[in-house]
Amino acid sequence: MFFASDNWAGAHPAITEHLAREAAGYASAYGTSDLDQRIEAEFNTIFEREVAVFFVATGTAANSLALASVSRAGGVTFCHSDAHVNANEGGAPEYLANASRLYPVEGPDGKMDVGALHTAVSRFDVPSVHHGRPMAITMTQATEAGTVYSLDEISAISAIAQSKSLPLHMDGARFANALVALDATPAEMTWKRGVDILSFGATKNGCWCAEAIVFFKPEMAEEMPYIRKRSAQLFSKTRFISAQLDAYFKDGLWMDMARHANAMSDRLRAGLKGSNKARLAWNTSGNEVFAILDKQAAKAAQDKGAKFYDWLPPRETPDMVGKDETLIRLVTSFATTVEEVDRFLDVL
Amino acid sequence: MFFASDNWAGAHPAITEHLAREAAGYASAYGTSDLDQRIEAEFNTIFEREVAVFFVATGTAANSLALASVSRAGGVTFCHSDAHVNANEGGAPEYLANASRLYPVEGPDGKMDVGALHTAVSRFDVPSVHHGRPMAITMTQATEAGTVYSLDEISAISAIAQSKSLPLHMDGARFANALVALDATPAEMTWKRGVDILSFGATKNGCWCAEAIVFFKPEMAEEMPYIRKRSAQLFSKTRFISAQLDAYFKDGLWMDMARHANAMSDRLRAGLKGSNKARLAWNTSGNEVFAILDKQAAKAAQDKGAKFYDWLPPRETPDMVGKDETLIRLVTSFATTVEEVDRFLDVL
Amino acid sequence: MFFASDNWAGAHPAITEHLAREAAGYASAYGTSDLDQRIEAEFNTIFEREVAVFFVATGTAANSLALASVSRAGGVTFCHSDAHVNANEGGAPEYLANASRLYPVEGPDGKMDVGALHTAVSRFDVPSVHHGRPMAITMTQATEAGTVYSLDEISAISAIAQSKSLPLHMDGARFANALVALDATPAEMTWKRGVDILSFGATKNGCWCAEAIVFFKPEMAEEMPYIRKRSAQLFSKTRFISAQLDAYFKDGLWMDMARHANAMSDRLRAGLKGSNKARLAWNTSGNEVFAILDKQAAKAAQDKGAKFYDWLPPRETPDMVGKDETLIRLVTSFATTVEEVDRFLDVL
Amino acid sequence: MFFASDNWAGAHPAITEHLAREAAGYASAYGTSDLDQRIEAEFNTIFEREVAVFFVATGTAANSLALASVSRAGGVTFCHSDAHVNANEGGAPEYLANASRLYPVEGPDGKMDVGALHTAVSRFDVPSVHHGRPMAITMTQATEAGTVYSLDEISAISAIAQSKSLPLHMDGARFANALVALDATPAEMTWKRGVDILSFGATKNGCWCAEAIVFFKPEMAEEMPYIRKRSAQLFSKTRFISAQLDAYFKDGLWMDMARHANAMSDRLRAGLKGSNKARLAWNTSGNEVFAILDKQAAKAAQDKGAKFYDWLPPRETPDMVGKDETLIRLVTSFATTVEEVDRFLDVL
Repeated sequence: MFFASDNWAGAHPAITEHLAREAAGYASAYGTSDLDQRIEAEFNTIFEREVAVFFVATGTAANSLALASVSRAGGVTFCHSDAHVNANEGGAPEYLANASRLYPVEGPDGKMDVGALHTAVSRFDVPSVHHGRPMAITMTQATEAGTVYSLDEISAISAIAQSKSLPLHMDGARFANALVALDATPAEMTWKRGVDILSFGATKNGCWCAEAIVFFKPEMAEEMPYIRKRSAQLFSKTRFISAQLDAYFKDGLWMDMARHANAMSDRLRAGLKGSNKARLAWNTSGNEVFAILDKQAAKAAQDKGAKFYDWLPPRETPDMVGKDETLIRLVTSFATTVEEVDRFLDVL
Repeated sequence: MFFASDNWAGAHPAITEHLAREAAGYASAYGTSDLDQRIEAEFNTIFEREVAVFFVATGTAANSLALASVSRAGGVTFCHSDAHVNANEGGAPEYLANASRLYPVEGPDGKMDVGALHTAVSRFDVPSVHHGRPMAITMTQATEAGTVYSLDEISAISAIAQSKSLPLHMDGARFANALVALDATPAEMTWKRGVDILSFGATKNGCWCAEAIVFFKPEMAEEMPYIRKRSAQLFSKTRFISAQLDAYFKDGLWMDMARHANAMSDRLRAGLKGSNKARLAWNTSGNEVFAILDKQAAKAAQDKGAKFYDWLPPRETPDMVGKDETLIRLVTSFATTVEEVDRFLDVL
Repeated sequence: MFFASDNWAGAHPAITEHLAREAAGYASAYGTSDLDQRIEAEFNTIFEREVAVFFVATGTAANSLALASVSRAGGVTFCHSDAHVNANEGGAPEYLANASRLYPVEGPDGKMDVGALHTAVSRFDVPSVHHGRPMAITMTQATEAGTVYSLDEISAISAIAQSKSLPLHMDGARFANALVALDATPAEMTWKRGVDILSFGATKNGCWCAEAIVFFKPEMAEEMPYIRKRSAQLFSKTRFISAQLDAYFKDGLWMDMARHANAMSDRLRAGLKGSNKARLAWNTSGNEVFAILDKQAAKAAQDKGAKFYDWLPPRETPDMVGKDETLIRLVTSFATTVEEVDRFLDVL
Repeated sequence: MFFASDNWAGAHPAITEHLAREAAGYASAYGTSDLDQRIEAEFNTIFEREVAVFFVATGTAANSLALASVSRAGGVTFCHSDAHVNANEGGAPEYLANASRLYPVEGPDGKMDVGALHTAVSRFDVPSVHHGRPMAITMTQATEAGTVYSLDEISAISAIAQSKSLPLHMDGARFANALVALDATPAEMTWKRGVDILSFGATKNGCWCAEAIVFFKPEMAEEMPYIRKRSAQLFSKTRFISAQLDAYFKDGLWMDMARHANAMSDRLRAGLKGSNKARLAWNTSGNEVFAILDKQAAKAAQDKGAKFYDWLPPRETPDMVGKDETLIRLVTSFATTVEEVDRFLDVL
């Protein structure tokens, strides 16, 4: 009953096996090996266009360096107030992007409200060194609240970005889960809807450590090799990432894993709807479920071995006010089993 | 005949196998799992004292964050002019340590001259906001020139550090190779000789990606958790590093690999001494060999499949002046075979 | 009819005359002259305790370096969303304080709501490298909205700061105007109410360029000399600042100027209350007045020579919705005359 | 007998008087007033071409922001090891330019050796994220050693800059003194010889505080307004700088002051050549004199009221070795009198 996070799972066996196979022999370092080149080309295929790809160590690094690549003096990046960059990355997006700033925008269900975003960006319409200037919009897909922007919602945000000549970044730490939720292709959910730069996360979806920054306009990536090195994010034995991704992409393993993770969350959602000890805090559609439990039930479940966290920083929905309840987050992954889910629903 | 770098080798089979074994099941993230805790404790054993350990993604990150942990406004860190931090890390040590500065010190054989170091540090004896102020000394062991500081040489440097109340950092990207060269214990080569912080490198010595910052005075590491996160160097599935190190330390595998790598370099050194097409540029004692070849011989060897680089940035020793020669670097690793070495000596 | 900003006024004649007097002869540089020392001591008298004083070039520098002095990795500073540091300093507070972050807190009348502030700070009660950690609270006195925190309101904020062990910074760009509005002493409005660091602004109140950072606990300023130099804020001929402040403090000139500026705003406020073409947007009590004009009246006034700005970024109060009105800011200074005020009220 | 530094002098009476005249009345802030515009245009006249001008608070700021304007990830700036940016600015050039690095180049008399500079820059000819990449060359005119690059020496350095496509920056903290020493026009000593960006210093030459960054290709300055604000270097009441410069340029006051300062150094140089208690350490040609005194003579002079410093950090010339001598720096300014010089030569 491990629902604490998708990063509590290890790696898919096919991935570690492939890693072992690729361990022997020599290969040139720093992303120049044949395998590295082949995987980079694979990204072109997956995204149906030529892209520039940069491996980095963590999702935080992917987001931070993506912003660094578009940073400029006085720069301001717009994001949801609950976005990982704003709430969970310990200041890295600012530190690694020349101290440029984040501007939090509100919106229900973890999604930026389009009107609020437009208002926020428009505050900078009159150029002013005092106010600073917009440098990017970043959206999270799937969001931190477990929801997924629809394709049209992505378009609505990219329309604002384009009208203000701003690059649009997507934090895809749970990219595959969002694809499954929308039944969309990677191209449809990104550049075809106006996304310029993607943090492509594979770690939460069955890899050990495989994060990449994908530029859909390769000319935007000119500075990236130096930015990545300056941030100590250039691996020497890059094939250990390439080998993971080789297995990840092979025969659609990545989509299979995401499909499974989402299905396990679907099962959780269905079960919680029928529970009288818990209810869904809001609708989600990826591999995360947010539920409101009365505190005793939560404690009882934990005592019986269920692993999950309160959503942090703690908050409450309007219908929790005055009740002895807690808002928890449940995350499923490629490793989650039907048994785990059912047992959890049982112990509730 | 792969002598380009020790990072061209993959990972030792025992390491990838162990990684595969640890892939199944759940473990808490961000360094909190049982395995992570066990490996951290293992460092205490290896270094014969309580230490604080922080995993990071690259050797550059280890060095940079070590300096970040002691950085202060106006801070200056002293290093050899050829030190990796100064010559090969793309500005990361400055960028990740609040823009603090490096002060290059000269010295033969890649080692800081003790007199030159003392002179350099003493330039700051009169406090001055204009000049800035010393914040650390960093030494590389083994050095970029393939040499190894003797234990007494380490003491001579740490005596300066202590007399000026400066922390002493050691870049141990090739830590195990240096231990073998000196036949010293980890404790003897570090804190017993006055080293305060160590970049412990395992990647070049048979791991995929396993670098750690080791603080011999754990109280110096108080800020590190936040510094590491701010630099996007906190892995989520940390057990993928711990599992590598688990196998690395098991039954002394790490020392065996280093011993083998050094022995292969010894074989190269011996062979080159007897060659009339090449000579040693200077004496080295770890797993790196610097040789002077006439350019035709170098070209011929490369045509026959030998992989190596000129030492970059290019330079020449006094006895090369006016000759059509090139100064190359040969690096051996756990994966180097006797056959490779002998074939290389043959083709010369 | 110049109400655009208090920085449109030049310097008070007594200040430039004194500057001219101090121009002759030699004085040691970088804050070490007798005059510099005397003025530093004067700050002790004014604040009724020993303080550490650092001159800098701009109010933005004062705020930024004050935050730099308490910055730490992952650090978060709480401020009102309209605070100058957050809205008008072009990213300097982040850039000059090691990329630490600002956390905007809402509240009416330009003042942080105490409950909202407490909630915001408390989100960080559970230590987490992901969330970062509080490093300071900063309040603006007088606020950007022209209002003034009462002494008890300052205490309420400092109570939160103290309960969370956070330093409290006050941006006093219009410090003297706030003192006049509260009829308080410098000590009463700062350290006696829990303020630790003050940006003491004199430029807007009749100096050419005289800003200082005042530490009420001098031991908190240990790093400041290096921080200031690193930020290129150490003047060489510091006596040009000291000379200004010498005249500024002499015979209470500074308070006289602030009293006059506030009185001119009082006159504006009184006049606007009786106008049928304009009304006060909200109550203010320093040297700033926020008024709602119908756009034609605003245009007409400008055509007749009145100088003022819309409040930027533009916003509207609830009672402006749907009307053809504009929200303007009027600022008075030591140089404002009764005639200017009355003429402005006339042309409306 | 004040020879400690040219920043020990106050301001020329004509400058403070003009400042007093400009104090009355209103003027728009942040560099937009008529006077500001007129002074900016004056720079066009002085440099015989259209330039972009940015006032900043200190010479350190001018240098640092000039480098910030050309900074890029992995960037390296070449300078003399004794250059003010490298030796005397407390890390500001790195901190304010996104942590880009300085690369010290040696050369006699405080001037970069052209061969050494070429070698240093050429080390980066093979692109490498590890080594970083050149971003600028900066030279000091007059140098920290009191010498002046000849026009042909400037050309030799700019030839390297141009061959490597690097911008050339000149630190002109003592710009006017160098002009006098070379009997050159501002244009001849800068853009006509390939200088792209100039730190134009007026503070040391009779102003209170007047430093400007001058871009000879205004299109290179596009980011500067935001860079300056981000660094807290945008003055509000800019006319206090413009007014100083207005008087500074009027009727050639600035060149008169520099001519006087240099003449006073000439008188010192002549006198020291005839002394048996002191000798010139090397030839200088601006307003600085470096002399070797036996320590007793130095002490005696100081006891009689002479003010001067050892050159810091302390160093000695070959002919000082083993002698009880000290290397001092003497600086003259617009305020130095013939009597001061003669009295100093007397007391020696």
